Amino acid sequence: MGDPAGIGPEITIKAWEALREHPEFAFAVIAPPIHFAGVPHQQLDHIGQAAGIFKDALPILPIEGGKAVAGHPNAAHAPAILASIEKAVELSLTGASSAVVTNPIAKHVLYDAGFKFPGHTEFLGHLAQGHDAPYAEGPVMMLAAQNLRVGLVTVHLPLKTAAAELSTDSILRTARVMLGALQTDFGVKAPRLALTGLNPHAGEDGALGHEEIEFINPAAEILRAEGHDVTDAQPADTLFHAKAREGYDAVLAMYHDQGLIPVKTLDFHGGVNITLGLPFIRTSPDHGTAFNIAGRGIARPDSLIAAIRKAHDIATNRHGHRP
Amino acid sequence: MGDPAGIGPEITIKAWEALREHPEFAFAVIAPPIHFAGVPHQQLDHIGQAAGIFKDALPILPIEGGKAVAGHPNAAHAPAILASIEKAVELSLTGASSAVVTNPIAKHVLYDAGFKFPGHTEFLGHLAQGHDAPYAEGPVMMLAAQNLRVGLVTVHLPLKTAAAELSTDSILRTARVMLGALQTDFGVKAPRLALTGLNPHAGEDGALGHEEIEFINPAAEILRAEGHDVTDAQPADTLFHAKAREGYDAVLAMYHDQGLIPVKTLDFHGGVNITLGLPFIRTSPDHGTAFNIAGRGIARPDSLIAAIRKAHDIATNRHGHRP
Repeated sequence: MGDPAGIGPEITIKAWEALREHPEFAFAVIAPPIHFAGVPHQQLDHIGQAAGIFKDALPILPIEGGKAVAGHPNAAHAPAILASIEKAVELSLTGASSAVVTNPIAKHVLYDAGFKFPGHTEFLGHLAQGHDAPYAEGPVMMLAAQNLRVGLVTVHLPLKTAAAELSTDSILRTARVMLGALQTDFGVKAPRLALTGLNPHAGEDGALGHEEIEFINPAAEILRAEGHDVTDAQPADTLFHAKAREGYDAVLAMYHDQGLIPVKTLDFHGGVNITLGLPFIRTSPDHGTAFNIAGRGIARPDSLIAAIRKAHDIATNRHGHRP
Repeated sequence: MGDPAGIGPEITIKAWEALREHPEFAFAVIAPPIHFAGVPHQQLDHIGQAAGIFKDALPILPIEGGKAVAGHPNAAHAPAILASIEKAVELSLTGASSAVVTNPIAKHVLYDAGFKFPGHTEFLGHLAQGHDAPYAEGPVMMLAAQNLRVGLVTVHLPLKTAAAELSTDSILRTARVMLGALQTDFGVKAPRLALTGLNPHAGEDGALGHEEIEFINPAAEILRAEGHDVTDAQPADTLFHAKAREGYDAVLAMYHDQGLIPVKTLDFHGGVNITLGLPFIRTSPDHGTAFNIAGRGIARPDSLIAAIRKAHDIATNRHGHRP
């Protein structure tokens, strides 16, 4: 459900309207039904009923929660927001559903209610603990636009911290998760992964920084020794134009803005956030709660729709690979 | 001339062929004539002769220098490379020419010959010293693509150093040069400048870094108090898509890749590097010497042509503003 005071309910309704004729994308929203009073909906006893009614009504798996005022976040919603996430994860872990798609949350709303995690992804990682299933190597954030996939070695850290915490181990871990997911989730048999440099011109042989020589290129060498098609550190500025994108299946970027600037510049509305390395499939729109436009009917559902479609694609691909 | 073992001579010839019917873009190349043996050319006594022969022959202001082998950089070319830059600056400072357009150089070739500057731009800044002319506030690097202009607060520094050296003063200095240049050089009467944040989500109110609160937003406040239209720190990832670009005339980015990734992703071949804050106009292509493809006839002159056109546009705009 995401934060009910944001654009989540509105884009969920718009996504249902866009997808209701496509049974393969059938979903249920886990939320207090009061947030969907204005649209044909039906409360389910269990998620298995969603596909049957998806064409005619928005399927809702009901949880407890009060009315929300669009644009006015309220810590009172925190228990329902968290319960929705927990229920979605549980349904996927038991195999009752194929995937989790999360609407945007606002961390400060949850913090006010005692939430202890740095973000959505870390909470999902926590819920996944103890499930040593396949694909459970720990969360890796990947953004997928129409014509570009980017994974991140570091995510929500101050830039100075991200630069200081880069290590060969962190690059190896994220690269291996990415390479595995490209095969199992994206149908790329022999994935080609490009690594960015951390510094301008990828350090220019050490003249503009040493992380390429110390951490990134050694990680690339280890990955190549394992048989993977991985580049040394590439200058990030020349890595994302159309011709360059033909040379790889995905990029592993060293920090948040380095990866998200090209994704959101190229495909602002259709980008999808995918959490790899969890024992369940999780996608989400790559935008926030947008409290400032909530309730005005102008929110675009493109990214949520893309997230639902991507979750379906991944589930289909994984099914063929399921160990 | 740039480095004669790179693609400089080839793209210079291609640019002349593309522009020879357009007398407003007439230029002379300052180089040993031997690098242009294969094309109709004419040696000049002084640059004033260039316009008259531009249609029929590539105008050359000759300097001393030996033959180059394409793709094989050689420190023996360093004296001619530097003499070409010095002569070009002298011609602009005396008003004999309108602007300096520089072909790419390779710093390591010049270092091998005793060159002491971190790069092209710093050398130009040195040559400009003692000329307290207008526009001489010190070099600021700006990239101009077809639909995006970006200036940089820090340029060729390791990322960690760039993050550590950010200051209110450095933001103020570069922003003021940008705002002035947008008016005098780009014909924007009331320029709107967007500042990026340094950290993910522009620091998220301090949760992901403090530079926005400590340096960037205070600089923005000072600039607004001076009457400028300047934003607080904006999340860089959502600042460069088409709709966002309508909201400003230029962006001031905090570090190299943050500014160059969007420019080169959006307009890889047509981007131009412009050095603001010098007492002469200077543009250059935004690519390097490309030794790996030199001499094969496949180098694209788009960026050099765009640099020549941009130099002309700036000279025309500045003429209207000349104090």
